[in-house]
Amino acid sequence: MGVSPLIDRLIEAFQVLPGVGPKGAQRMVLHLLQHNRTGASALAALLSEAVETVGHCEDCRTLCENVLCRYCDDTERDDTLLCVVESPADIIAIEQAGGFGGRYFVLHGHLSPIDRIGPEELGMERLLIRVRALHPGEVILATNPTVEGEATAHYISDMLQADVAIISRIAHGVPIGGELEYIDGGTIVHALQGRLRVN
Amino acid sequence: MGVSPLIDRLIEAFQVLPGVGPKGAQRMVLHLLQHNRTGASALAALLSEAVETVGHCEDCRTLCENVLCRYCDDTERDDTLLCVVESPADIIAIEQAGGFGGRYFVLHGHLSPIDRIGPEELGMERLLIRVRALHPGEVILATNPTVEGEATAHYISDMLQADVAIISRIAHGVPIGGELEYIDGGTIVHALQGRLRVN
Repeated sequence: MGVSPLIDRLIEAFQVLPGVGPKGAQRMVLHLLQHNRTGASALAALLSEAVETVGHCEDCRTLCENVLCRYCDDTERDDTLLCVVESPADIIAIEQAGGFGGRYFVLHGHLSPIDRIGPEELGMERLLIRVRALHPGEVILATNPTVEGEATAHYISDMLQADVAIISRIAHGVPIGGELEYIDGGTIVHALQGRLRVN
Repeated sequence: MGVSPLIDRLIEAFQVLPGVGPKGAQRMVLHLLQHNRTGASALAALLSEAVETVGHCEDCRTLCENVLCRYCDDTERDDTLLCVVESPADIIAIEQAGGFGGRYFVLHGHLSPIDRIGPEELGMERLLIRVRALHPGEVILATNPTVEGEATAHYISDMLQADVAIISRIAHGVPIGGELEYIDGGTIVHALQGRLRVN
């Protein structure tokens, strides 16, 4: 029950955002319409463009509007290290922490039989192809330290056994049950430095 | 420093939303691109449409995509009561509370000489025209209980003196469910001054 039908629908639409309920959505809509229509237009245009054009990087599967993402396209990065993560947000967190200059591969999730997410949904075949093309000396498994993340790391470790000399797991400086995306940079640096060989 | 230039710009664009910082914006963008592109498209389209078409109701100045808002267009409402508020959000709050069936007028702010907001910016002339057309028996001043809100209420009270029989101000006091112990001094002073005889 807002002011007008269109505004009501817009408030409803804003609730697709994570952490945004009816009150928050109403506040956002009224703020934009009253105080920042230029910003609102820019937001709408960019969001529309992103939905149309953002796909997955051909090499690492992260979200990207080009064929290759900025990390796969960067010839300066270290080809001997490949870091496997669950989501694009994890790449951002690792890059912001600094200290890692290698390549990435994004699973977009973790093994979860209950949700019918198996090796195929996580692009395991693409990972194998990528590893065989890149020939990294080491693959770092940086899935989240949850039960599913551990299971996923185990699966990948088994799969890559024959192709990679060193397969490592980020150290458990990261608290169990936490999500990489929200951990501070210092902890991430420690977790990367303290990785343990699992094969 | 996100994953791709377009996604970085989209994260930046999301920060026009009130209460949304870099981390929150990043979370929203990745969530939409990974899990809800349909919702994102709908949001972009509606936001764009709203920016284009939402203007002000001709009678009450609230945000509205039609000539008249749903309250001004409703012939069932009580023409003898006109409630003056600072923002469209105030109308929503009053409507959700229930118990008021009259008309509204939205100032879109309060008098604030420092910000160069005078009677003209608040549509005082439109308010006078509206009052003279509607002939309400009572005008309720529901501006916020701040220094600026009080000053604005005083200004309107003076302006409408000759045209309206009753000009009232919403009561200020202890909120229902609140505890006297935790209420600020200003509110208690108002609550005592505005006391009502109960016998």
